[in-house]
Amino acid sequence: MTTIPPLSEIVIEDIVRRALKEDFGDAGDITTKSTIPADAQSKAVIAARQAGVIAGVQAGLAAFRLVDPTIEIKVAKGDGASVKKGDTVFELNGPSRGILSAERTALNFLGHLSGIATATAQFVNAIKNTGAKIAGTRKTTPGLRAVEKHAIRCGGGSSHRYGLYDAVMIKDNHIVAAGGFEKALAAAKSYVGHMVKVEVEIDRLDQLDAALKGGAHVIMLDNMSAEDMKKAVKRVGGRAILEASGNVTLETIRAIAETGVDVISSGWLTHSAPNLDLGMDFQ
Amino acid sequence: MTTIPPLSEIVIEDIVRRALKEDFGDAGDITTKSTIPADAQSKAVIAARQAGVIAGVQAGLAAFRLVDPTIEIKVAKGDGASVKKGDTVFELNGPSRGILSAERTALNFLGHLSGIATATAQFVNAIKNTGAKIAGTRKTTPGLRAVEKHAIRCGGGSSHRYGLYDAVMIKDNHIVAAGGFEKALAAAKSYVGHMVKVEVEIDRLDQLDAALKGGAHVIMLDNMSAEDMKKAVKRVGGRAILEASGNVTLETIRAIAETGVDVISSGWLTHSAPNLDLGMDFQ
Amino acid sequence: MTTIPPLSEIVIEDIVRRALKEDFGDAGDITTKSTIPADAQSKAVIAARQAGVIAGVQAGLAAFRLVDPTIEIKVAKGDGASVKKGDTVFELNGPSRGILSAERTALNFLGHLSGIATATAQFVNAIKNTGAKIAGTRKTTPGLRAVEKHAIRCGGGSSHRYGLYDAVMIKDNHIVAAGGFEKALAAAKSYVGHMVKVEVEIDRLDQLDAALKGGAHVIMLDNMSAEDMKKAVKRVGGRAILEASGNVTLETIRAIAETGVDVISSGWLTHSAPNLDLGMDFQ
Amino acid sequence: MTTIPPLSEIVIEDIVRRALKEDFGDAGDITTKSTIPADAQSKAVIAARQAGVIAGVQAGLAAFRLVDPTIEIKVAKGDGASVKKGDTVFELNGPSRGILSAERTALNFLGHLSGIATATAQFVNAIKNTGAKIAGTRKTTPGLRAVEKHAIRCGGGSSHRYGLYDAVMIKDNHIVAAGGFEKALAAAKSYVGHMVKVEVEIDRLDQLDAALKGGAHVIMLDNMSAEDMKKAVKRVGGRAILEASGNVTLETIRAIAETGVDVISSGWLTHSAPNLDLGMDFQ
Amino acid sequence: MTTIPPLSEIVIEDIVRRALKEDFGDAGDITTKSTIPADAQSKAVIAARQAGVIAGVQAGLAAFRLVDPTIEIKVAKGDGASVKKGDTVFELNGPSRGILSAERTALNFLGHLSGIATATAQFVNAIKNTGAKIAGTRKTTPGLRAVEKHAIRCGGGSSHRYGLYDAVMIKDNHIVAAGGFEKALAAAKSYVGHMVKVEVEIDRLDQLDAALKGGAHVIMLDNMSAEDMKKAVKRVGGRAILEASGNVTLETIRAIAETGVDVISSGWLTHSAPNLDLGMDFQ
Amino acid sequence: MTTIPPLSEIVIEDIVRRALKEDFGDAGDITTKSTIPADAQSKAVIAARQAGVIAGVQAGLAAFRLVDPTIEIKVAKGDGASVKKGDTVFELNGPSRGILSAERTALNFLGHLSGIATATAQFVNAIKNTGAKIAGTRKTTPGLRAVEKHAIRCGGGSSHRYGLYDAVMIKDNHIVAAGGFEKALAAAKSYVGHMVKVEVEIDRLDQLDAALKGGAHVIMLDNMSAEDMKKAVKRVGGRAILEASGNVTLETIRAIAETGVDVISSGWLTHSAPNLDLGMDFQ
Repeated sequence: MTTIPPLSEIVIEDIVRRALKEDFGDAGDITTKSTIPADAQSKAVIAARQAGVIAGVQAGLAAFRLVDPTIEIKVAKGDGASVKKGDTVFELNGPSRGILSAERTALNFLGHLSGIATATAQFVNAIKNTGAKIAGTRKTTPGLRAVEKHAIRCGGGSSHRYGLYDAVMIKDNHIVAAGGFEKALAAAKSYVGHMVKVEVEIDRLDQLDAALKGGAHVIMLDNMSAEDMKKAVKRVGGRAILEASGNVTLETIRAIAETGVDVISSGWLTHSAPNLDLGMDFQ
Repeated sequence: MTTIPPLSEIVIEDIVRRALKEDFGDAGDITTKSTIPADAQSKAVIAARQAGVIAGVQAGLAAFRLVDPTIEIKVAKGDGASVKKGDTVFELNGPSRGILSAERTALNFLGHLSGIATATAQFVNAIKNTGAKIAGTRKTTPGLRAVEKHAIRCGGGSSHRYGLYDAVMIKDNHIVAAGGFEKALAAAKSYVGHMVKVEVEIDRLDQLDAALKGGAHVIMLDNMSAEDMKKAVKRVGGRAILEASGNVTLETIRAIAETGVDVISSGWLTHSAPNLDLGMDFQ
Repeated sequence: MTTIPPLSEIVIEDIVRRALKEDFGDAGDITTKSTIPADAQSKAVIAARQAGVIAGVQAGLAAFRLVDPTIEIKVAKGDGASVKKGDTVFELNGPSRGILSAERTALNFLGHLSGIATATAQFVNAIKNTGAKIAGTRKTTPGLRAVEKHAIRCGGGSSHRYGLYDAVMIKDNHIVAAGGFEKALAAAKSYVGHMVKVEVEIDRLDQLDAALKGGAHVIMLDNMSAEDMKKAVKRVGGRAILEASGNVTLETIRAIAETGVDVISSGWLTHSAPNLDLGMDFQ
Repeated sequence: MTTIPPLSEIVIEDIVRRALKEDFGDAGDITTKSTIPADAQSKAVIAARQAGVIAGVQAGLAAFRLVDPTIEIKVAKGDGASVKKGDTVFELNGPSRGILSAERTALNFLGHLSGIATATAQFVNAIKNTGAKIAGTRKTTPGLRAVEKHAIRCGGGSSHRYGLYDAVMIKDNHIVAAGGFEKALAAAKSYVGHMVKVEVEIDRLDQLDAALKGGAHVIMLDNMSAEDMKKAVKRVGGRAILEASGNVTLETIRAIAETGVDVISSGWLTHSAPNLDLGMDFQ
Repeated sequence: MTTIPPLSEIVIEDIVRRALKEDFGDAGDITTKSTIPADAQSKAVIAARQAGVIAGVQAGLAAFRLVDPTIEIKVAKGDGASVKKGDTVFELNGPSRGILSAERTALNFLGHLSGIATATAQFVNAIKNTGAKIAGTRKTTPGLRAVEKHAIRCGGGSSHRYGLYDAVMIKDNHIVAAGGFEKALAAAKSYVGHMVKVEVEIDRLDQLDAALKGGAHVIMLDNMSAEDMKKAVKRVGGRAILEASGNVTLETIRAIAETGVDVISSGWLTHSAPNLDLGMDFQ
Repeated sequence: MTTIPPLSEIVIEDIVRRALKEDFGDAGDITTKSTIPADAQSKAVIAARQAGVIAGVQAGLAAFRLVDPTIEIKVAKGDGASVKKGDTVFELNGPSRGILSAERTALNFLGHLSGIATATAQFVNAIKNTGAKIAGTRKTTPGLRAVEKHAIRCGGGSSHRYGLYDAVMIKDNHIVAAGGFEKALAAAKSYVGHMVKVEVEIDRLDQLDAALKGGAHVIMLDNMSAEDMKKAVKRVGGRAILEASGNVTLETIRAIAETGVDVISSGWLTHSAPNLDLGMDFQ
């Protein structure tokens, strides 16, 4: 079994600290402070209320640790684990106040990120045994890109570029402004040097040759029919990686994958996948 | 027509700046910088690709302004405005580089927040002419609570507490730890003083009297049947505000509202409402 | 004995770290570094040089811990404890350098916040056996509101709103702009929803009825005579909480409390209460 | 007339932004947003409610500017200006919402810092025509040292060291640890190089010679009698600067100054000076 | 003439603000504030005191703007411009205080970054008319990577990866831990997906085939002789990009370039290139 | 043996955290995560590849600790230690991933700061047995002043002012604006009070008397001939500290020191000293 490499704790801690500050404000958890004795101890579990795939474990742990480092947590289901309804994800043991005060922040991360992982896993499952991979996009929730990209990985998805900075994606506006495919590709490749991949987006088959001639490493087929995608796969013949984009749903994805494209990218996974229902129960 | 009061720009700017840094990294928009001339000017519109309600206008404006303050923007549809498919939301005019580099960050905010506003408006519409109001919860996306609470308002929803700090919400664990309803309510009310509301969550009708006797300002009816909610409304007779929670969907919400409860709260609006599809078109 | 629930360490650490940076600059404690050997160990106590009530213990501890986590500290007097002249508050044991370098920052917090707690306790003592409570205001020292609100609690005071965000306070300018008491109250109550209290400030008895009719949860009697306050208490008859404000001093406060008002608020506690004299002695 | 050089806006903006965030939280000024129309305009003045000396003008301006840059402000009384009861300090003209929302933050800075300036001016006035100067200490309010040091200057006081980093202050613990006055002074002077002043604290006259021999630039006479201070002045004869410290009040300060010491330092000015009463009036 | 696309101002402002705070501390420019009248105006130029290539213009402008936005600056030599001794780079006109206070921070950026650009240009010039390009490495000054990578570009160099995050670089330790070239390459390529380039470092010719077989996009020849590099170029025949690294100096670089490698990378450019001497003169 | 007092960890941690974020971005060390198993353990050493003097040990330790606090490090050569080629500086033992991911950041600090310490030591050695000391200037790398000033100390150099805020340095522009030496010195001394040193820069011997008369604590002789410096030393006769500046190289420095000046300051040490070559080897 492969475990999923973790995110840097430096990144996680910043994101979780910000979320805790948002929930605590200046006055803190006024309910818990006033009703729960300082020395009360509790055992609790975070459990799945529906089946899915877990992501966000580092953030969940950080939420409890930053509120009270004496809370002991056993991770029953790590990032990427599949859960059934009722499965325990975290077992917690420690001061009741800390457990209650951090609960919502931990669940907000776990639910949101497991929702993305679960949706990704559904897509991945739908295209099993095709050669295609699922990748996310830059259509992420502002402030959460690092953890959402990781959640896609937890669901079995692959990585796309993280931002404007780590790969080139040439769209129609860039092509027009640069004076055509080849000029745009040449300008980009010259600018970014030898360590950066260059992708170009096309929406008609007759643009394929210009993209290949310009030396695109990756060609995105935007909103093309399955028929056209098949033709593109055939014509390219492995000279570039082909990525399908647009109108990707659980219903359509298998047909897209069967065209032979290498990658299918979806913004839906990060901007619209519903929360995975997780809850905390005291024991 | 009422306009929706804006968020503080101090809050908005922090959130948007963080999102831009996430997308720009150190190298910036390497595609645009290499393919678009520095002096290229463009006109573009951000338009709705589906019907809905707009939210996130301040964040969208800030994204463009922080990237390039010379971009001129006319807001055609402000926060809370209803849009049809094809309606223009922003009209942009200025340096092509800045418009292209800020596009995704602006759309990520607008799409996410308009998605929340749109879902809220659907709930609000479903309960029209009942006395009930829709409120969000603390089940928000980490780091975005301020703007998501505002998006609910844009959709016609009402406010609930913003965090652990501004109102008391007593749940079963608090009640058990404090030694009963009255003790928990007394402890909380004494602690928080005269300026903070106190809510208590119950899941059985026989808890109503204790909650009222303890002086709860608001009583949450958690996952109760419509039948029980009606009984609760009758028995309380206006002595406390009644909030329904649990299993709130577009299908169930009308029946819940017709029980006579004052407020219906939903976590789904902030953790699972899908993105509203908006896109940018160059002209 | 009731202990006072602590502030979130996330809030404390930010405030104390900022204070330490202010004192250390880039070069650090050049006196201690140059004159005290790295391996010197010391025992020291922080003691009260005058009688009072302690607050700021978390900040004091954080100052030493952030400078050198190996310093051992025994808290002899916690938040809310009364001290006589000479009483030990902290017993310290550890590296001399760390103890000396953190001393001033720790004392600045302890002295300032204990000053507020001490002044509050004097007010609270002066109104013993009346029904009134003491509350602070938003007239706090910029950047220290969380810890100053907590210090008032340490002195036996109650809480008022923390900021512009957690409760409504309608003053004359708001009333004029909104078109009268009832309109202002209605607008505010509709805007903030069911979880937020609404207070209105009046300075004449003839405004009481409008305030009550508008549904104010709390009515502030601003700079009224004791005579008028008594009349207000009688007329309101428990339908709203009454808060007295203005000209509150140790001399006047008993008479104000005896009018029957519920709360007496004072800005003086946070903007002008003198420091409690505490000092560190090496042993 | 000399004007007081301003603080760096980079420092001011950070401090004021933090204070505004503390007051606005996520929800902002819910009272003003709900009761004041977006297009309402107001004129207002900030006026002194008691006589004193003004400080904090930059912070006051920044508070309004950061909330709404369209508010126009005329500064009638700048930093260091004396005011009588009723004197106007700021004249404001602009959106009512912004003026009301920033009011408390601006007044908190102006009142606190003018309080320090006013107290300093009283000390300065009390020692007029002696050769002594008034200086603050490091006993400042955490997070506000830059602006409080400036406020002392606005009151006619002089500067002392800003922190642990910019000058050496050798106290008894340092002397003991280093093995005597001369060793401590030699170690410090060698460490800090040629650009940093070195002060040593003594509490007995018989320590004067060691301090002078060690080459102290400044000698602090800690809690000495006026008689002993006079002797110290005579014995030192200008070979070092003499600073008096301890038990400095408006009653005692003239006698201290008349001993001939060069500087009198006071922690009271920053940790206990009461607020100067300023208020805002709409017109 | 091609102009060099600018860095994002969001990145620049953070870096420059931090540098200014470092120089201003809390007290600010005490020399200038005390000796220069507030209304003094000056004209000044920043000029090259030796020949070189300019970089850091955005940072230099930001330093003056953040200190005083009323200073007018004309950029005579932009990023990437060659200068002779005596050439003017900036012409400044505005308040003397601001110009003097920002001078050192502006010069520290301009001198450091122009030093890197100048050194890069010397390397680029030395290999003119070979097919090789110069690239920097991750051996940058902590905190300045974004601006140093840009400075290399200003000197005519090309880009390498910006950090650990945007491209894969497999070294001997990775290969050993992964169990050989092919396994390491396969693991990396699978992990990073289709948008990231993968480089592998070899130091013997017999490793070339494994690197190619593993599908490395780029192969680094580490500290190889010119003879071996030529052999590598021939054997690879364009199937991967070849990068030379190690022992790159102005003396050796031409010979390296003439082996036919595609890229020559140098850490020296960013960790050891001397400052370009620039100074400010008042007029 | 004297050890060099450390920097405050509060300062170090900020600087190192920023550097790590710069290197890790959102995606982290994608090479190591994909090729090295999570449980792999390694031993490694950081060793000197050339002779020199070590600085930056705190930053190096912090880089590893912040990436993985379980990495054990033995410091073989601390700040200020001389190393020969091949000497071990750190011995590391712990998770391979953490060691590899933090390596570059640790080495960037150690190499840069040891380069400054090494250059300083060469200067110090060159003037052995003269009375002069070496001091750095404000010509530091932006963002690294605290650690670069410390590195100079590690090389045996002395301290100069840290910024604009902790000492006065009057240059020709200040003198002209203030109306002459005496006026500038008087204004500065009056402004800064009794705890701050005042230096004035002169470039002609005939300015010496005005500088002395104005009471300068330190006089900088800017770009003077050795002959003139000797005259200055004689004429000043200990009434002020004399600092030589300008054209300071390893070749010229001995002659400068032998003129009898007290301090020789050099910007080259911080803006142009080459990196000390250090590397990490796995075992």
